[in-house]
Amino acid sequence: MSELSESPAPQLQRFKLTIAYDGTLFHGWQKQEPPGSEPLRTVAGVVESTLVRVLRQPIRLVGSSRTDAGVHARGQVAHFDAINPIPIERLAKAINSRLPDDVDVLAAEPAPIGFDAISGAKNKQYRYRLYHTERRPLHLRNYVYHCWTPLDLGRMNDAARRLVGTHDFAGLTTLHHGRQTTVRTVFDCHVEEHPPEVQIVVSGSGFLYNMVRIIAGTLVEVGRGHFAPETIDAILEKGREQPAGPTLPASGLWLEWIRYE
Amino acid sequence: MSELSESPAPQLQRFKLTIAYDGTLFHGWQKQEPPGSEPLRTVAGVVESTLVRVLRQPIRLVGSSRTDAGVHARGQVAHFDAINPIPIERLAKAINSRLPDDVDVLAAEPAPIGFDAISGAKNKQYRYRLYHTERRPLHLRNYVYHCWTPLDLGRMNDAARRLVGTHDFAGLTTLHHGRQTTVRTVFDCHVEEHPPEVQIVVSGSGFLYNMVRIIAGTLVEVGRGHFAPETIDAILEKGREQPAGPTLPASGLWLEWIRYE
Repeated sequence: MSELSESPAPQLQRFKLTIAYDGTLFHGWQKQEPPGSEPLRTVAGVVESTLVRVLRQPIRLVGSSRTDAGVHARGQVAHFDAINPIPIERLAKAINSRLPDDVDVLAAEPAPIGFDAISGAKNKQYRYRLYHTERRPLHLRNYVYHCWTPLDLGRMNDAARRLVGTHDFAGLTTLHHGRQTTVRTVFDCHVEEHPPEVQIVVSGSGFLYNMVRIIAGTLVEVGRGHFAPETIDAILEKGREQPAGPTLPASGLWLEWIRYE
Repeated sequence: MSELSESPAPQLQRFKLTIAYDGTLFHGWQKQEPPGSEPLRTVAGVVESTLVRVLRQPIRLVGSSRTDAGVHARGQVAHFDAINPIPIERLAKAINSRLPDDVDVLAAEPAPIGFDAISGAKNKQYRYRLYHTERRPLHLRNYVYHCWTPLDLGRMNDAARRLVGTHDFAGLTTLHHGRQTTVRTVFDCHVEEHPPEVQIVVSGSGFLYNMVRIIAGTLVEVGRGHFAPETIDAILEKGREQPAGPTLPASGLWLEWIRYE
């Protein structure tokens, strides 16, 4: 046996990251490198380039949810493959020490066998925060949507319940959704009071482009009396023929968590 | 009698504003118009120019506390003199509708006779917010100071109590303070736990330049064991000969309220 065969070959391993970020100063999650100009500041771009500096090898970071510019995350999940990194218990700290202060790696761990951040996601929860008082949200202005019209939460919860289940959500996304099917399963949707906030919580198997922001806009229309709760049924049945509510601003949207098998 | 004498002369009245702001994007309270360049974005500058637009007359806004860039306020107080404004009950709303979203007029009211925002202030409270956990303060990063060394709150409160009273605070300000006397009265100083935050609360007759930020830095040095609580006595006695703690960043500092007779 040669000496070379005795030393174990370096192993390419998969790692799972759980990441929180303040979306205010990011152009969303997904890397964007427009030809002929500087790359935009994105969460994936910033974390990936930090991983390259920490691990000293090429890294491709795959995130579960492509959050838009201004959207926040408490528990985005991503994976990457790397050889022989620093001790796993020190990895999150090593990454964080080089990250800017608006992104935070909450956990860095070896991924289970066959783990894929995108295809393995079984349940995702988003929260849309309405700042529901006449006073402006001053210090929270990048983290909530200011909505001070009276809202009937009973009506909103009635409407929210109608979204639960497997439906064609074509009427609750924007046209260029780029997905093959617009059928998704919503596991839960309800409205919570956290004065002075009203929060719309929705979890599901996956979400179409702008879907949570349009759901939030539609539930607000129900809450203020412009739509009946039954409008939800009509939107789910007729798709785009039945107008939904407006797409609320990105700043009120929070990706809460993503669960895997 | 001529007709002119029958119509009452327009009255110059004094008004009191209570103002909250997010200091992050302001170059402090005080108007700054550097010669030959654009005026800097300051709270007083923004509010004053809004008052001019709302009331259509020259206005000079006088603020009680000249907070620095990055310092926040929940209850700054200012006064101005104006003739015949719109109905007083609509004034705050009229101003707010034209203000940017990082400043909020909480109240606009007729000032009591002889009111002066600066000389009439009897008691001011500031709060310095320490984010006391290993996790970074992500969404609060502009509103707290991240300090994750162990802190002994008993020691900090012991030190804080020693600041109460009328003392020469020359050892707890920066050199170019521009005030005739460095004697001030601190009415109360204590440390509160609001997990994950530790907050230093101090109220007094008035504060010297950087005084609260240096008090906070000094109490942190006591809390982490670098200074004894008795160091406070030595600083108050010897002034600059006894080194105080560092000036903590502006972003953790909040002007809470100002009281008048």
